Amino acid sequence: NKEYTISVLPGDGIGPEIMLQAYKILDIINKNCMIKINIHQYDIGGIALDKYGTALPQKTLDGCKKSDAILFGSVGGPKWSSLPANIQPERGGLLPLRKFFNFFINIRPAKLYKILGYLSPLKNEIVKNGIDIICVRELIGGIYFGSPKGRKKINSKNFYAFDTETYSTYEIERIATIAFQLASKRKNIVCSIDKANVLESSILWREVVTHVSKKFPNIKLTHLYIDNAIMQIIKKPNTFDVLLCSNLFGDILSDECAILTGSIGMLPSASLNDTLFGLYEPSGGSAPELTGKNIANPIAQILSLAMLFRYSLKLNDISNLIELAVLKTLKDGYRTFDITDNENYITTDMMGTKISKKL
Amino acid sequence: NKEYTISVLPGDGIGPEIMLQAYKILDIINKNCMIKINIHQYDIGGIALDKYGTALPQKTLDGCKKSDAILFGSVGGPKWSSLPANIQPERGGLLPLRKFFNFFINIRPAKLYKILGYLSPLKNEIVKNGIDIICVRELIGGIYFGSPKGRKKINSKNFYAFDTETYSTYEIERIATIAFQLASKRKNIVCSIDKANVLESSILWREVVTHVSKKFPNIKLTHLYIDNAIMQIIKKPNTFDVLLCSNLFGDILSDECAILTGSIGMLPSASLNDTLFGLYEPSGGSAPELTGKNIANPIAQILSLAMLFRYSLKLNDISNLIELAVLKTLKDGYRTFDITDNENYITTDMMGTKISKKL
Ligand SMILES: CC(C)[C@H](C(=O)O)[C@@H](O)C(=O)O
Ligand SMILES: CC(C)[C@H](C(=O)O)[C@@H](O)C(=O)O
Repeated sequence: NKEYTISVLPGDGIGPEIMLQAYKILDIINKNCMIKINIHQYDIGGIALDKYGTALPQKTLDGCKKSDAILFGSVGGPKWSSLPANIQPERGGLLPLRKFFNFFINIRPAKLYKILGYLSPLKNEIVKNGIDIICVRELIGGIYFGSPKGRKKINSKNFYAFDTETYSTYEIERIATIAFQLASKRKNIVCSIDKANVLESSILWREVVTHVSKKFPNIKLTHLYIDNAIMQIIKKPNTFDVLLCSNLFGDILSDECAILTGSIGMLPSASLNDTLFGLYEPSGGSAPELTGKNIANPIAQILSLAMLFRYSLKLNDISNLIELAVLKTLKDGYRTFDITDNENYITTDMMGTKISKKL
Repeated sequence: NKEYTISVLPGDGIGPEIMLQAYKILDIINKNCMIKINIHQYDIGGIALDKYGTALPQKTLDGCKKSDAILFGSVGGPKWSSLPANIQPERGGLLPLRKFFNFFINIRPAKLYKILGYLSPLKNEIVKNGIDIICVRELIGGIYFGSPKGRKKINSKNFYAFDTETYSTYEIERIATIAFQLASKRKNIVCSIDKANVLESSILWREVVTHVSKKFPNIKLTHLYIDNAIMQIIKKPNTFDVLLCSNLFGDILSDECAILTGSIGMLPSASLNDTLFGLYEPSGGSAPELTGKNIANPIAQILSLAMLFRYSLKLNDISNLIELAVLKTLKDGYRTFDITDNENYITTDMMGTKISKKL
């Protein structure tokens, strides 16, 4: 019986509720799969701020360090949004965690199952073949972390504030390589996003991506400016396979792709470093307006767990089983509030139970 | 008979073809409206690069300086896209022109006429009431022009490149004021876009916008992060009225709004400075793939001319007449290739003639 340790960080908002459903899955796996998953739960985000005065307590970091993977819920909410930005759950918790573990790879699949086609805000003729795009986003560089970053006083009433978008050859090379590798297991198409008609960092981005592509002769590489990409993805989502993006452009485009599926409550994501140690979290946020109502969709959290088994634990079989259980539950017609097309829906809790039973 | 002088800069791609249609409108106005519009045409963009080795010749600048407004076609195309970025039509022509005349205000309406509802990529139930959003974009600040901007060598194979996003209180105040003023003539709703959970420039942006809003107690102000805005605009386009954006976020969001109307060939834009001297151009680009085929939609160019009459010449009546002529022509069922829902369409040239006759 192989043993693994997972750090579970439910966080704020709907995080704890949907995490409970992932626990049900972990339970079944522990009982039936001849492996042992040890679970350690830690605080992060707003709840950690409340308890310890910091969104990322040392104890949480230490726990994560000792584990094989991190399962993350979500952080943030109105309660903490008037605090200074740099201590808020996002900038004080999530961003430093990404940086600390060198999670430069962010993988965000946007998949629209054909049986859920009605969910997409796009016309049926555009999405009749579903949507299946993966956004590969650089996660610890660019304008999120570039220095200098700050503000200066011009006089008593006037300031100027600044952020630095910056990329090095090395940073671009390593994320581009990931995107090409991923595409080679899919449809062999990479579209790299930049604003090379305006930004110096984008000119370098385009050069380096083009250079890396030479090592992947089977992959078709195209480049789009971010403004044009925003339009093309809406017009023809299923001409895209893998999107390769900087941190900021990936933040924007992955959310665009997500909303086009109409089912953001079902989308998982993975943040990885070069050892494939990773953090797995739903693509949607903490959704304060859904919190405590037992209506949030737990599928994003459960599929994040499936990604964890695939990428960090290398247990593809278990990963496939979880994904299949989700699909079967959907095929049986079970829907949470956010994905139903009629009046019938089941609770967060019931959806978790249904999926774990299928498993 | 009042006299005005307009600089006309057709530029590249479809620019010259659609500009010819705007000339037809100008002709009718000169003959019937008791005013005299003097027209001087100048080169800009790729055609200027070919002729004079620079995308923005001094002669063009001098001509624009002496005029009351600039009517612009579009610049750029594959022919010049392998030149160094800073001399290309966009960065060497359009951007310095914006900066030179201090065009800090960019106004981009995204309007979906109900009779063209079928054009939108969004489901009918989402756009059944049309779309009517105006994007107010700061146009000469932010990461487009912030310094430092450049690249440095780390070693023989490695570089790092950087751009600076920067805003001052003053820059934010003046564009925010424009947005609030505009909203007060519309639905009194402003949504300001930023990424204040990550960017220092966005934190200042949000503070200053909030401060300016105090002078406009009747306007409802909300703030959205850019990633969330990208989603909400797709989900509920008609809850938005005026969007207030930085240069980069405005570039992205205005194109999103444009594509949601499905008729980017119909959307005009205005770039203004504090004297309301302005440059008026179609929102779409030079569209190399349509060039020379007599199929491009001239309506964006003609509606840009209408905006020119409204904002720079203060001739609202003429502006209204042009807009009405466009609407009537559409109501009569005339469509160019890009906006037809069947096999029937008319040429660029015919559309120009139809609209000018309606006038
Ligand atoms: C919460 C925020 C800082 C974060 C980001 O911008 O990266 C979020 O939007 C995301 O995409 O994970
Ligand atoms: C051509 C390019 C430099 C320009 C911009 O980014 O501003 C264009 O996309 C626009 O929106 O007018």
